Amino acid sequence: MSARSSIQYSEVVELAKSRTLSSMGLRWIESRLYILDQQALPHDEIWISIHSAQEMVDAIKYLKVRGAPLIGVAACMAMLVEVIRGASFSEVQQAWANLGESRPTAINLRNNLQELAAGWNAENYQLQVAHRALNIFDQDVALCDRMASNGADLIAKNETLLTHCNTGGLATVGCGTALGVIAKAKALGKNNHVYVDETRPLLQGGRLTTWELGKLGIAYTLNTDSMAAYLMQQKKIDRVLLGSDRICRNGDFANKVGSYALAVQCHYHGIPFHVVAPMTTYDRHCATGAEIPIEQRDADEVRGFVSHRETKTWAPREAAVYNPSFDVTPAALVTSFITDTGVYSPQEWQKLTKGDV
Amino acid sequence: MSARSSIQYSEVVELAKSRTLSSMGLRWIESRLYILDQQALPHDEIWISIHSAQEMVDAIKYLKVRGAPLIGVAACMAMLVEVIRGASFSEVQQAWANLGESRPTAINLRNNLQELAAGWNAENYQLQVAHRALNIFDQDVALCDRMASNGADLIAKNETLLTHCNTGGLATVGCGTALGVIAKAKALGKNNHVYVDETRPLLQGGRLTTWELGKLGIAYTLNTDSMAAYLMQQKKIDRVLLGSDRICRNGDFANKVGSYALAVQCHYHGIPFHVVAPMTTYDRHCATGAEIPIEQRDADEVRGFVSHRETKTWAPREAAVYNPSFDVTPAALVTSFITDTGVYSPQEWQKLTKGDV
Repeated sequence: MSARSSIQYSEVVELAKSRTLSSMGLRWIESRLYILDQQALPHDEIWISIHSAQEMVDAIKYLKVRGAPLIGVAACMAMLVEVIRGASFSEVQQAWANLGESRPTAINLRNNLQELAAGWNAENYQLQVAHRALNIFDQDVALCDRMASNGADLIAKNETLLTHCNTGGLATVGCGTALGVIAKAKALGKNNHVYVDETRPLLQGGRLTTWELGKLGIAYTLNTDSMAAYLMQQKKIDRVLLGSDRICRNGDFANKVGSYALAVQCHYHGIPFHVVAPMTTYDRHCATGAEIPIEQRDADEVRGFVSHRETKTWAPREAAVYNPSFDVTPAALVTSFITDTGVYSPQEWQKLTKGDV
Repeated sequence: MSARSSIQYSEVVELAKSRTLSSMGLRWIESRLYILDQQALPHDEIWISIHSAQEMVDAIKYLKVRGAPLIGVAACMAMLVEVIRGASFSEVQQAWANLGESRPTAINLRNNLQELAAGWNAENYQLQVAHRALNIFDQDVALCDRMASNGADLIAKNETLLTHCNTGGLATVGCGTALGVIAKAKALGKNNHVYVDETRPLLQGGRLTTWELGKLGIAYTLNTDSMAAYLMQQKKIDRVLLGSDRICRNGDFANKVGSYALAVQCHYHGIPFHVVAPMTTYDRHCATGAEIPIEQRDADEVRGFVSHRETKTWAPREAAVYNPSFDVTPAALVTSFITDTGVYSPQEWQKLTKGDV
């Protein structure tokens, strides 16, 4: 290490030590990174220490860390771990590439990593990673607060809401996206009841959203994904809110599989359907949903269920399986995009993104 | 026992012994009734001997026996078990009442039990139950064959089908309803691929339909219920076929929860949506779907999954749950009713049932 980079390294160490960050699913304490193992929730709350970018890649792949905004922030914080453990620029670049490939659909990961690395070089990378990773964390908290305020304004008192997957404090490092809006509405005394899609196959609704709503003291009812339409038929749902993993220029968006089904159901029943996501979810390089890569996951997730303890198989072990992790909903089915910069109808969204490529 | 009823009893014993019945999920061998424990499938094939009507009530309640047509036949065969074990008329009447209440939504159970008991009395009940129970079994096999032929005519070569829940040889004592049609199409060389909704919460698709399709040598792909709409969006589904637990005079029908969601999805995507059911599923006393009682089941089924071996809970143990076993689809969303007497559009169905009350 040169004298100069040694001075820089000391500065990074000081900076990293000076901050303590704590969210529902990620902590930075005395320069150590911890994640809450989301595969073990809701019955076990296990914090895992992350010692390298590779450990974070594995944690993302095995869904110990999940949620589009959280993945983006967690990857950047893992880059800081790399820097602090003394990785060279080429090692850090390799770690950056590996993290970028850990999950294909969520664009926040790529957007955050690009922000982290823009203009870095062998001279400045240590301090840049440290400053930007911490900044990206802070930024996510602020984005969530703005989305929550923008969204909560739309929700009337005593409305019954339905949500899909998990989009709260576990999916971000702030209050969340869709669930952040719901939490804000609760804080404003709007007294909403929330129906929760269990969200097969990985049960993020049944395992995580229920757990968060319980912690927030918000009344909820858990249902299987197949029951949402029947709830709508009975006029039990006033509004659907969910997150997004990527929004295209034309407003088509990808989200957890099952989101498209809900969009069609809302359209048929005349129920408002809101996508809550920070602008870091926007992919200016994607013209339409047809360009979004959709991750296909392991067959065992559909043949049964997979937890941190076990793989349980209830279907025939040789069953062929369809397991896209996400689906794509056309913009035309969206009532509005609730973002940190404002609330946009699909038409307004298209106007906003018109000049982009 | 009087001399007269003693002679009648001997005749019943002879008649019962003279028949051997064998379906995929129910057997009558040397006057003993066996059921395949459907909760143990697909990994364990366990045949349970049924010694009384009460044991059948329990088997129905715990879904060891399920499928609207099978429940109806199985209840009648359990009545024969009661007669053979020497039950008095009042005991047999009590057993009949208990069986009739074992599950509320499927109407075949009530229709079959009424056929069994029409005009019985203390003098004739033994022989009547024996004759009618065996006849109801035979009748179900014949009904299935006729539905299968009527339905298979509608299916084109190489079409891709989607089905929900289980409606095959396990749900009837014949070849099935919707799955019977699919099996017949296979026999006619139509080379269809079948997508199978796993059918949460009780996973009849993932556990039973996959198992049956495997036995039939029909190519299939298992998907979560939330993926069906996305498959339709990608034009991967040509036709949806499913069963029914009760059809009303106006053509509204009840079926496994999730059926209504599929009906809306088919409507939106312009995909034919067929209900396959014998006329014993028709409830002439129900004018519209609003009159169908919907069974609410145990919360643990949605909080996790329930098998013959264990109850696995992945949601918070205190989670409030919505768990209707069935939902109701309005007639307007049905392309046709495929029955043993013919294929009817909703308009034709309403014409057919017009004079009924």
